[in-house]
Amino acid sequence: MEKLIITVAVTGAEVTKQQQPNLPVTPDEIAQEVYRCWQAGASIAHIHARMPDGTPTQSKEVYAEIKKKIQEKCDIIIQFSTGGAVWHKPEERIQCLDALPEMATLSAGSCNFGDDVFMNSPSFMELLAKRMKELGIRPEIEVFEPGMIENALRLVKKGLLELPLHFDFVLGVPGAMTGNIEDLVFLVHKLPAGCTWSVAGIGRYELPLAVHSILMGGHVRVGFEDNIYYRKGELATSNAQLVERVVRIAKEVGREIATPQEARKILGITK
Amino acid sequence: MEKLIITVAVTGAEVTKQQQPNLPVTPDEIAQEVYRCWQAGASIAHIHARMPDGTPTQSKEVYAEIKKKIQEKCDIIIQFSTGGAVWHKPEERIQCLDALPEMATLSAGSCNFGDDVFMNSPSFMELLAKRMKELGIRPEIEVFEPGMIENALRLVKKGLLELPLHFDFVLGVPGAMTGNIEDLVFLVHKLPAGCTWSVAGIGRYELPLAVHSILMGGHVRVGFEDNIYYRKGELATSNAQLVERVVRIAKEVGREIATPQEARKILGITK
Amino acid sequence: MEKLIITVAVTGAEVTKQQQPNLPVTPDEIAQEVYRCWQAGASIAHIHARMPDGTPTQSKEVYAEIKKKIQEKCDIIIQFSTGGAVWHKPEERIQCLDALPEMATLSAGSCNFGDDVFMNSPSFMELLAKRMKELGIRPEIEVFEPGMIENALRLVKKGLLELPLHFDFVLGVPGAMTGNIEDLVFLVHKLPAGCTWSVAGIGRYELPLAVHSILMGGHVRVGFEDNIYYRKGELATSNAQLVERVVRIAKEVGREIATPQEARKILGITK
Amino acid sequence: MEKLIITVAVTGAEVTKQQQPNLPVTPDEIAQEVYRCWQAGASIAHIHARMPDGTPTQSKEVYAEIKKKIQEKCDIIIQFSTGGAVWHKPEERIQCLDALPEMATLSAGSCNFGDDVFMNSPSFMELLAKRMKELGIRPEIEVFEPGMIENALRLVKKGLLELPLHFDFVLGVPGAMTGNIEDLVFLVHKLPAGCTWSVAGIGRYELPLAVHSILMGGHVRVGFEDNIYYRKGELATSNAQLVERVVRIAKEVGREIATPQEARKILGITK
Ligand SMILES: [Zn+2]
Ligand SMILES: [Zn+2]
Ligand SMILES: [Zn+2]
Ligand SMILES: [Zn+2]
Repeated sequence: MEKLIITVAVTGAEVTKQQQPNLPVTPDEIAQEVYRCWQAGASIAHIHARMPDGTPTQSKEVYAEIKKKIQEKCDIIIQFSTGGAVWHKPEERIQCLDALPEMATLSAGSCNFGDDVFMNSPSFMELLAKRMKELGIRPEIEVFEPGMIENALRLVKKGLLELPLHFDFVLGVPGAMTGNIEDLVFLVHKLPAGCTWSVAGIGRYELPLAVHSILMGGHVRVGFEDNIYYRKGELATSNAQLVERVVRIAKEVGREIATPQEARKILGITK
Repeated sequence: MEKLIITVAVTGAEVTKQQQPNLPVTPDEIAQEVYRCWQAGASIAHIHARMPDGTPTQSKEVYAEIKKKIQEKCDIIIQFSTGGAVWHKPEERIQCLDALPEMATLSAGSCNFGDDVFMNSPSFMELLAKRMKELGIRPEIEVFEPGMIENALRLVKKGLLELPLHFDFVLGVPGAMTGNIEDLVFLVHKLPAGCTWSVAGIGRYELPLAVHSILMGGHVRVGFEDNIYYRKGELATSNAQLVERVVRIAKEVGREIATPQEARKILGITK
Repeated sequence: MEKLIITVAVTGAEVTKQQQPNLPVTPDEIAQEVYRCWQAGASIAHIHARMPDGTPTQSKEVYAEIKKKIQEKCDIIIQFSTGGAVWHKPEERIQCLDALPEMATLSAGSCNFGDDVFMNSPSFMELLAKRMKELGIRPEIEVFEPGMIENALRLVKKGLLELPLHFDFVLGVPGAMTGNIEDLVFLVHKLPAGCTWSVAGIGRYELPLAVHSILMGGHVRVGFEDNIYYRKGELATSNAQLVERVVRIAKEVGREIATPQEARKILGITK
Repeated sequence: MEKLIITVAVTGAEVTKQQQPNLPVTPDEIAQEVYRCWQAGASIAHIHARMPDGTPTQSKEVYAEIKKKIQEKCDIIIQFSTGGAVWHKPEERIQCLDALPEMATLSAGSCNFGDDVFMNSPSFMELLAKRMKELGIRPEIEVFEPGMIENALRLVKKGLLELPLHFDFVLGVPGAMTGNIEDLVFLVHKLPAGCTWSVAGIGRYELPLAVHSILMGGHVRVGFEDNIYYRKGELATSNAQLVERVVRIAKEVGREIATPQEARKILGITK
């Protein structure tokens, strides 16, 4: 089985310091938190930028600053979110690509998301795919429902994406697919041979899906974007605490942890 | 096994007379086509209204006229679409309820749909559910992705919908879930006990999904909204032709056809 | 989708004339019944031999006589059962291979079967595989439980069988796996790419499994060995009546019927 | 989620001291090993008796001695194997019930098992069920293939077993079903509501299946009967070492461990 790639989603677009006092918000805080997670074993940092007051932003300047500060500390793979906040406009969301991360997310369809609709029209998906191709950014295909796998494969047929793809199943969002083991098994069976995949369980789904994935040969995403608790009723003290638990469990079951350099190789990132 | 409820979706919002010359468009044409399908064995008519030039409309007057003309001919259950066309605004889409059909659709979430996004925000879903409840209209929950089942159950928890629900799996839409047999099996396993379900396969998925459903104890939707061909490369001569084939196959495998009155009983419609 | 191969299992080892008066028992009766099924569209005849009094036998002489009489009438593929009756000893069961059928069954494991245990030890499976290989007989792998697929693949690894294999899922035997659609989907997913498969539903499972298989690209076995009724409470008038219904349904859903010569090609039989 | 019941299968019928030097064989060794596992968190001891030279035996005297010695040390639930070794005769296998364990296994069908056939005919299953009922022994239904669930439910219909049942899925035996996550999901979906289940993965399947089960709300069996390694190429130092790892992982994912007394309540054992 391949080594385990751990992605940490340290901030997200929705969580507030009120909900999770340890949330990293400024570029310095984010870089410091990512650094601690890298020390703990994370090999990808999934980044959402925020304004100093905590408002989510897709400003390429802020993304560029975060990138610079992380790179000063460690060699973790930097992945920017093109999802932004559900209310961001497409033209805002795509901006962060100009800050040239190694990876960026590409949400492969639309679904409800809490009280909102998370819009990813076919034309926006094409735009994102083209721009990532031009800039040499490796996409991570975010999948919230099975149909989104088909949507990504449609872009492959159009020549805008290339196999093998790397998928991330984001499961348990209110408005989209649940994150039970049968859901994960169902989705994994739909992937073309050779593709890699990760799973980001939302809230109470985070830990069980992470562990199932470790056993199944998938990869794992944890972090405050998806879940702010260490266990029921107990806030996590840091994103690193969540990474550390994944590492301990992986060791118990005999799955080795990928370094960023090993993760690049698994994901086909040439740097 | 319960008797088979056949829904016919005679018109839809997207098909044109150019694509399918036998498409019924005016209230008279629609009523006449529904009547032929009722003769063939259909017990629910799924209706989209059109303007005389073929443009889709959610006008309650046009819906009322169609309803009146159908009721003059037969006792088929009349189901209006609150989906309308993908570009219809929520306030337009909901209008048709004022024409008081026995049933109406409630699409339980958002997804891509061809080149567009089919938007069904949580608040719009709540609005539809409340309005149907006030007016005594039986909802049919349209499901394009597994997460939509959860969305409907969330409305049950809020007291806006009541179990057992009747679901319709619309599978094979470009932008949402495919319509292979494993998809159908997966969705059916997710339903709470006691719920009924139907399947509407889009395009080439229509016939195989209909037949699988007949064997599995589900119900069936066919019609030009979903598929305009009788077989590959051969346009259907009428919606009734598609209904007749379903009836023949049901007979071959020993599943009896429900009359509208029997369908009302199966669906819990009191009239 | 490939053309549909229909196998007819006209006699079996267990059904009696008391249960099904139209059961063919003697070589002449069997040949005549197979001929009628071939006219109806069957391309494989699955054969169990009987003594004149109806007792099942694995005598190579009786098998040879049946083969000769069938070949005088038509070019259907002749497949002998090495399963025999559950109480036949291995050395009796294997005998029929000496009568040189084009195909023979190889049951890939043991399971309960009604009140008995159907024994197929690993060493007997190896013996059958070797003998079929020597004699140039194409095996059909009979699968009653998922583990039997693995058992067959173990023989592939040992060089006793060769991919692609042709499987037959025998589902609904009291003592082994049921024959619901989720069972079939589960089994089909386990097959290596390139393998072909058929399904033999026992009793009330025969017709629904046959129809699911037609739609899924599998092949179909029907006949008195598996099911003696045309519909609930109504005995079939002949094996051909069961074949004819499969043919009618295949035509309704647009699946063409393979001739014996086309079936040989699909199954990789060189003759 | 219910607390986790850990069963330890310390000896089995096949493993030898040559293969695993720490294998407990004599009643004293078995009792001591069970005691260490109870300290580590096991609440059921699955027992096979051996002769002093290591040969498996179903002698009720040896079973009685093992029971006595364990009960002198701790309150673990004692479960005897009626499976014995594959070459034991039914009348030998059933003997151990006379030593009156709290629980005993009931293998619910036949399958290949390594080079042999593991025979559990319908009549032997009935005999076992009746005898356990008479003696007030709680059965654990051993399932090696999906059809065995049906076989157990057939005994329920006959009044020989009672719902809710407790199942153990023994997966990965060469000759029967594999132990991948989709196999486990498939089996669990087949259980009637209210039944409890455990999983015993053979060899390399032991650890991943145990962990999946912890997350899914199932229970777990580990021990030298199923697997003699701690990790690839490294023999376990004791059965307790395997139990300890399960306990650590359960704690990491927030699943509490059942005491024997709590396990009795979960399993409906009245003592
Ligand atoms: Zn994100
Ligand atoms: Zn519609
Ligand atoms: Zn046979
Ligand atoms: Zn045992």
